[in-house]
Amino acid sequence: MNEPLLAGLLTDKYELTMLAAALRDGTADRRSTFELFARRLPPGRRYGVVAGTGRLLEALPQFRFDDDACRLLEEFLDPPTVRYLADFRFGGDIDGYAEGELYFPGSPVLSVRGSFAECVVLETLALSIFNHDTAIASAAARMVSAADARRLIEMGSRRTHEHAAVAAARAAYLAGFAASSNLEAQRRYGIPTEGTAAHAFTMLHCHPDTSPESAELAAFRAQVDALGTGTTLLVDTYDVTIGVANAVAAAGVALGAVRIDSGELGVLARQTRQQLDQLGATTTRIVVSGDLDEFSIAALRAEPVDSYGVGTSLVTGSGAPTAGMVYKLVEVDGMPVEKRSSHKQSRGGGKEAQRRFRSTGTITEEVVYPAGRAPDTTEPFRALTIPLIRGGEVVADTSLAAARTLVASGLRSLPWEGLKLAHGEPAIPTTQIPA
Amino acid sequence: MNEPLLAGLLTDKYELTMLAAALRDGTADRRSTFELFARRLPPGRRYGVVAGTGRLLEALPQFRFDDDACRLLEEFLDPPTVRYLADFRFGGDIDGYAEGELYFPGSPVLSVRGSFAECVVLETLALSIFNHDTAIASAAARMVSAADARRLIEMGSRRTHEHAAVAAARAAYLAGFAASSNLEAQRRYGIPTEGTAAHAFTMLHCHPDTSPESAELAAFRAQVDALGTGTTLLVDTYDVTIGVANAVAAAGVALGAVRIDSGELGVLARQTRQQLDQLGATTTRIVVSGDLDEFSIAALRAEPVDSYGVGTSLVTGSGAPTAGMVYKLVEVDGMPVEKRSSHKQSRGGGKEAQRRFRSTGTITEEVVYPAGRAPDTTEPFRALTIPLIRGGEVVADTSLAAARTLVASGLRSLPWEGLKLAHGEPAIPTTQIPA
Repeated sequence: MNEPLLAGLLTDKYELTMLAAALRDGTADRRSTFELFARRLPPGRRYGVVAGTGRLLEALPQFRFDDDACRLLEEFLDPPTVRYLADFRFGGDIDGYAEGELYFPGSPVLSVRGSFAECVVLETLALSIFNHDTAIASAAARMVSAADARRLIEMGSRRTHEHAAVAAARAAYLAGFAASSNLEAQRRYGIPTEGTAAHAFTMLHCHPDTSPESAELAAFRAQVDALGTGTTLLVDTYDVTIGVANAVAAAGVALGAVRIDSGELGVLARQTRQQLDQLGATTTRIVVSGDLDEFSIAALRAEPVDSYGVGTSLVTGSGAPTAGMVYKLVEVDGMPVEKRSSHKQSRGGGKEAQRRFRSTGTITEEVVYPAGRAPDTTEPFRALTIPLIRGGEVVADTSLAAARTLVASGLRSLPWEGLKLAHGEPAIPTTQIPA
Repeated sequence: MNEPLLAGLLTDKYELTMLAAALRDGTADRRSTFELFARRLPPGRRYGVVAGTGRLLEALPQFRFDDDACRLLEEFLDPPTVRYLADFRFGGDIDGYAEGELYFPGSPVLSVRGSFAECVVLETLALSIFNHDTAIASAAARMVSAADARRLIEMGSRRTHEHAAVAAARAAYLAGFAASSNLEAQRRYGIPTEGTAAHAFTMLHCHPDTSPESAELAAFRAQVDALGTGTTLLVDTYDVTIGVANAVAAAGVALGAVRIDSGELGVLARQTRQQLDQLGATTTRIVVSGDLDEFSIAALRAEPVDSYGVGTSLVTGSGAPTAGMVYKLVEVDGMPVEKRSSHKQSRGGGKEAQRRFRSTGTITEEVVYPAGRAPDTTEPFRALTIPLIRGGEVVADTSLAAARTLVASGLRSLPWEGLKLAHGEPAIPTTQIPA
């Protein structure tokens, strides 16, 4: 079975030693609010896309410590702390931004409320999930806007940790990618999967007494025989022009698509389109891949490309592989608290947020305010903070479909400046109303 | 239980559709060699450190497809292919570099031999594991050499996917880190774990009628009471000078360590050392953390720092989050094969490698040659290619201790130029002897 692991031990040791100290001195029960947010966007980025919410809510019931885990805990924790963890169940409340919502510096992405004990132990897991998934979704959204309605296929599994790959496929899909190559992403999240073939399959058909080009033709015939004419044939193993001719010879003019994975993709796409049309394969699509990122995707806009396959740059967050989210204690027993270290000041108190916009729908400002004290305004706005967990139970829609819709409408709501790929300031300013 | 997932579906769809086509046209049984290697090091890097071998060998027996997985496969594969996968067991041979070995552009890190069918389906998983773990270990080794024998603690779990975090802790440890914060890394791999406390634990002790500094003293007393005087107290929540005084007041001069997580770490470390010594806490160590990378670690060499806590830069490969390894078919039924696309030429044929060195032990050259045809040389050399799997069974030492030893001796063998952190060429040249 491909069941998720128990999540309790996917945690920094200090969360549990802090718990031990707090249980011992009686502070573990103090009502606490932790806030998950990013102090800033990755350098030059105009916006971020919240992702990970659904995975965190799914992981919460698995945040447990079984007998095997407790044996490890007994090596460094006192018996009351081990007993607390053996019985652990998060029973608090979580508010936050819906998955797929845009965010900006200081946006209160999650507010986690409960006893100090039950909130502090979630820190590592919550940050791991949000820092990873948000980094991928934020990069993916830039690629989606650069692709200008052309299809994007996530193909990066081999470039990242094997389980991170599944989460990356999910994050890319919610940001607007059409499909993934990852089968576990299909099984676990219902994400559509696609695949073509590798150069190895063509080379497998080589024989000492035949030419590489005839090996390619044999490989294409085998692929079409097994997968039908709707398949995508990889035409750049030897020579793209011969490859395209072989592809149409093997599949006929109803061939689904050809893929080009190397070379000057724009030039090759133009030549290939012309060649396909001359051969009568006017409906055969062109898929390009090979170290694409949002910039090279945008650069190919004028070319006859139908789909982009994106790997490395997607799963590594296109230069920003982690989102810089932090998880900070902001309130204890109703009192705002904050740290005072240089350059890392946090503003105390639980927070909510609203986003204001023009009558055209273009957003103008993010307003972050003390929880429960929404400011008066005559401008149109939308409340961003919604209930996610109440008493440990999920109360929000966590479907990927809802998140996809939210990303799409979020991208439409950005001012033009915000869609520029070049480095710049956040697309809208954030106003923090102090407690 | 924290058992690993079945690994079969952690795979790109096209591996299995290629399998279907190959089973159908009778090429699936052709004897094949796939090679896993990096065409180049990440930009500017002098060497890489092979990591992931142990995890791949551990994952191989889990590369299976259970009933649940097969139901998904039936949606797009024909019955013979699904039957093949339901019974799948890798029965081939794998040779390669030992885990922890240095590698350079073109080093044949793995050679996987068997039927095309059994080799091709491993591609995605093998690349995911090696591209992730090697990226982390390669960055970690640079930090280890920059730290110049001071202790490094891996604290990056929260900055990466929750399961990637466990593999990152393992990769850092094998590269020479002393410990990790990740508890699952301890349970699964026996890696020593350490922890201090977060700013939240200090702020938890705030009350409306007391000063932040007295809250800090109460927090330190609670931590010492629970964890003993050997603990590490985090002194920068409010004011480092007051924090250090509070720390010694709470724990006495036998305090294990203080941690500084923000500010100008060099200046603060010097002031703190002086203050600790004046207070008589001459054996109390100083741990620094906060966005450290190999460059800032090196910059702190002259300061009285005892340990470095490293997070973000480690788990993101310090600018190179993926290692660029590829998995290419190089031989079919004894015949070398290669792709001919621009800039991606592969050299056909199975390969082995040796590393040559001076009498001082300093390495001079990597020589890659056709498998079984070691070149004659009068120079001292070491064979790098060893048997890892025979008939599907592990035949190599996969202990982390062995890998740690190999990294340490590898770093000692580098010419001085190779240890420079600045961008440059690979530390030694690689000679490829053609088939």
